Amino acid sequence: MTRKRKFWGWGWEDGGPNEEQARGVAHTLAQRFGVAIDLAPVPRADEIALAAPRVAPPAALAAICSADPHERLGHTYGKGFRDIVRALRRDFSPAPDLVAFPRDEAEVAALLDWCAGARIACIPYGGGSSVVGGTEARDLAGRYAGVVSLDLGRLDRVLEIDRTSRAARIQGGVLGPALEDQLRPHGLTLRHYPQSFEFSSLGGWIATRSGGHYATLYTHIDEFVESLRVVTPSGVVASRRLPGSGAGPAPDRLFIGSEGALGVITEAWMRLQDRPRFRAATAVKFAGARGFESAVEAVRQISQAGLHPSNCRLLDAIEAANAGAGDGTECVLLVAFESADHALDAWMARAIEIAVEAGGVAPEGGAKTQRGDEGARDGAAGAWRNAFVNAPYLRDVLARAGVVSETFETAVTWDRFAEFHAGVGAAVRDAVQRVCGGGTLSCRFTHVYADGPAPYYTILAPGKRGAELEQWDEIKAAASEALVRLGGTITHHHSVGRDHRPGYDRETPALFRAALGGAKRALDPAGVLNPGVLLDPQPA
Amino acid sequence: MTRKRKFWGWGWEDGGPNEEQARGVAHTLAQRFGVAIDLAPVPRADEIALAAPRVAPPAALAAICSADPHERLGHTYGKGFRDIVRALRRDFSPAPDLVAFPRDEAEVAALLDWCAGARIACIPYGGGSSVVGGTEARDLAGRYAGVVSLDLGRLDRVLEIDRTSRAARIQGGVLGPALEDQLRPHGLTLRHYPQSFEFSSLGGWIATRSGGHYATLYTHIDEFVESLRVVTPSGVVASRRLPGSGAGPAPDRLFIGSEGALGVITEAWMRLQDRPRFRAATAVKFAGARGFESAVEAVRQISQAGLHPSNCRLLDAIEAANAGAGDGTECVLLVAFESADHALDAWMARAIEIAVEAGGVAPEGGAKTQRGDEGARDGAAGAWRNAFVNAPYLRDVLARAGVVSETFETAVTWDRFAEFHAGVGAAVRDAVQRVCGGGTLSCRFTHVYADGPAPYYTILAPGKRGAELEQWDEIKAAASEALVRLGGTITHHHSVGRDHRPGYDRETPALFRAALGGAKRALDPAGVLNPGVLLDPQPA
Repeated sequence: MTRKRKFWGWGWEDGGPNEEQARGVAHTLAQRFGVAIDLAPVPRADEIALAAPRVAPPAALAAICSADPHERLGHTYGKGFRDIVRALRRDFSPAPDLVAFPRDEAEVAALLDWCAGARIACIPYGGGSSVVGGTEARDLAGRYAGVVSLDLGRLDRVLEIDRTSRAARIQGGVLGPALEDQLRPHGLTLRHYPQSFEFSSLGGWIATRSGGHYATLYTHIDEFVESLRVVTPSGVVASRRLPGSGAGPAPDRLFIGSEGALGVITEAWMRLQDRPRFRAATAVKFAGARGFESAVEAVRQISQAGLHPSNCRLLDAIEAANAGAGDGTECVLLVAFESADHALDAWMARAIEIAVEAGGVAPEGGAKTQRGDEGARDGAAGAWRNAFVNAPYLRDVLARAGVVSETFETAVTWDRFAEFHAGVGAAVRDAVQRVCGGGTLSCRFTHVYADGPAPYYTILAPGKRGAELEQWDEIKAAASEALVRLGGTITHHHSVGRDHRPGYDRETPALFRAALGGAKRALDPAGVLNPGVLLDPQPA
Repeated sequence: MTRKRKFWGWGWEDGGPNEEQARGVAHTLAQRFGVAIDLAPVPRADEIALAAPRVAPPAALAAICSADPHERLGHTYGKGFRDIVRALRRDFSPAPDLVAFPRDEAEVAALLDWCAGARIACIPYGGGSSVVGGTEARDLAGRYAGVVSLDLGRLDRVLEIDRTSRAARIQGGVLGPALEDQLRPHGLTLRHYPQSFEFSSLGGWIATRSGGHYATLYTHIDEFVESLRVVTPSGVVASRRLPGSGAGPAPDRLFIGSEGALGVITEAWMRLQDRPRFRAATAVKFAGARGFESAVEAVRQISQAGLHPSNCRLLDAIEAANAGAGDGTECVLLVAFESADHALDAWMARAIEIAVEAGGVAPEGGAKTQRGDEGARDGAAGAWRNAFVNAPYLRDVLARAGVVSETFETAVTWDRFAEFHAGVGAAVRDAVQRVCGGGTLSCRFTHVYADGPAPYYTILAPGKRGAELEQWDEIKAAASEALVRLGGTITHHHSVGRDHRPGYDRETPALFRAALGGAKRALDPAGVLNPGVLLDPQPA
């Protein structure tokens, strides 16, 4: 009866495209790239040999620890391209020895005690949606006695609701849909919808500074965190619920983005929203040779106008065509406002005015507005939402088709953007051409700030069967190098994990990492928590 | 020609009320409290005996180090009530041995090298406006070879402007007016106006998480920081200019609020605003026995409506009367919006609608709106601004009059506010009655959040000459205890310093402070930076 998660790729075993649909996708790709494409067979768990677990749990933890192969396989990787390719190759060499499913905070603490005492690496695991190697026991053999994947999935409840302050106390392991299901009866919503929404957890969002629904203002989960409860090997860190404070460096900010290296987020008080009742949305088109440039200028001006749209998504011509929103020659700027409190005509009118002054063409009749609760959302928006959350299934098909795919995202100040965008594009296109003989690079803005945009790039290129990992590595290295060299960040919301460590080490001040190491030593003296993310594992 | 700063109190030697005006204030206070009040004479520098400096600078630093008594006296204290009272008593026992005025980052680094090597406590000093003992060498005798006050005042320039991204690279020592003077020709403004604006510095604002002009959204300086340059005894920490990032815990957030204990902020890239061209302001009155309660409900609803007013200041009946905005029986809610981009009618109309539905009475004719640049600001607003920035001069007069005064500020979630406000009021009124035999307590909201307000309390009570410090200590302890016990924060924007350490230690998780200590050891291994704020000084 219970749906089972795929151990080798995204989502449900019975989710995503079926074999016929997958062949259709492969056919389209073959036509686009002018190459022959076949689909690698999906792995079965019984084809994969796993080494015996190197560690056995103490009696007190036996009931929550599993050595079941399906669990070990399913907790070996995240869901990045490299992960899927290795899974398709039946390579699960970094599999954890055990997967633990604590039912409460005491069991999390007991597990950390055991790991710290026995020098077992412990990798906190929320929904397993990392695309940067954030939950993978990479290069830990020989340094630790074993590896436990700590799955927070049983900590999946909303514990308390404060309707007056619009906040809720929520367990860290809850996945997106179960969280919203528990908030809905109260008329509340977190409104945090990363693309991984279905298979990522509140604790994971906080630990990775996940980027969400709002294109402006509340771009990351960070601003929604009111307080945290974090279990560390040294004890529990519980911050106070406060709307704001000026008492020293903000305690929560040390743990927001700590990627499981400083502690395990078991609970958070989160700031919530009333469910929106008013919506206004439009799509402004920018055509011509300087269309993208004009659209960027429109976005800059809107981002500096203090209007705070919930969506301000610029699609370049390729992305617009792929989304069915453009004809392949025009860029499209999607602008939307939403509110639980007031009609949005004045806000939208000004945003459109700015976009049109910058050279855009707004639809006749202006914006589509809507009033009423979310159930009334029209078919197109619902279809877009479904396509958005189902997109990760496609990555599995691309990997099976031997098509190298990667999305990378960043942020950069407006003054540098033109040079940055050109430089990143040149570096990536050059790498894609050199490595794969061709491919496509497209760009959209997922989030925007008054001081700069967060561009999101998508690469698709025909790979060489058996060489996809090396091809991906070379393209990824070229992209990462360009991002950091040209003044961007190595990641706006995909987090650092293990794949982004070289860029992270270049981007952040060495002394800040030393300070972070000092903090880690106080919280995790044995260095067992997710070793390798953010900081190097301690010497064995 | 150069105006000289008072060494014993607020501002310029020739600023604030003159003797006749001060006697007028004393007369008013005497009438209010029904006691005789006289004014203690102000101290002269030549009345004060300072111990000889315990340390002498090395030759390379001699040019930037001063042992001048006026400088040593002026750098002994901040500007809190305790500070002024001790100054009036001619007690300058915590005076620093030297005051250093580095001219560039290299000199800051050289100074820290010397201090770390010679175990000299080094207290970064911006404008000297701390009201929490943030810059005082309290209880350091015997632990350190000496104390140097590091005055950043010569680092006072805007170095670079990025008009496109609306940002500027600014030196940490610049005071408010000089900063705005340098931005004005570019049509830009930081719009950060703490009450200390005239005599506080950019670096100080960042180091203390200063609260500013905006009542919502950008309540603290935190959100305006794009990147930092911090000199520590271990070296320079320079973060990257980024509009946003998800790469690990935000580096800047470790230094924002670090109160000089982790490093010296020499430069920051700050996010700026265009100068506002549109303004709308109104004052809604709430009368009757439940007026305050209704006004609080109005503020809660406005704070959750997504309107983001620049001002949303609730004055209780006492504060409203003092400000000339009420008759002593009614609370007043000041609401204002401002924009450089668009007219604000829709925003203001909805805010007034909410306030009126909650029981408020809006002025006939609605809000006052204004269009045009800041120069066109009308007389009333200008007068208010002047009164606001001149208020700290009054504290000097109160101390001279032997009137115990204190302002304390906090934040708390909406669900707890009613009980919190009643409990804090009871505890403080009880202490004031017990200690001083009477006095007044008033409250306003300076900043508001969707999940709670930031109430700001003002105490005035007739003190006993010679016992003011002990009286203040007892009242302050009662207030602090109530804040923390009832779920608030010990400080919303006055920072921790030394006065708030007991509350800070109760409010923040012990393990977070241990982690902060770990970070400090990496940056300041000798423990010479502002010892005693946030963390205890290291053992000698």
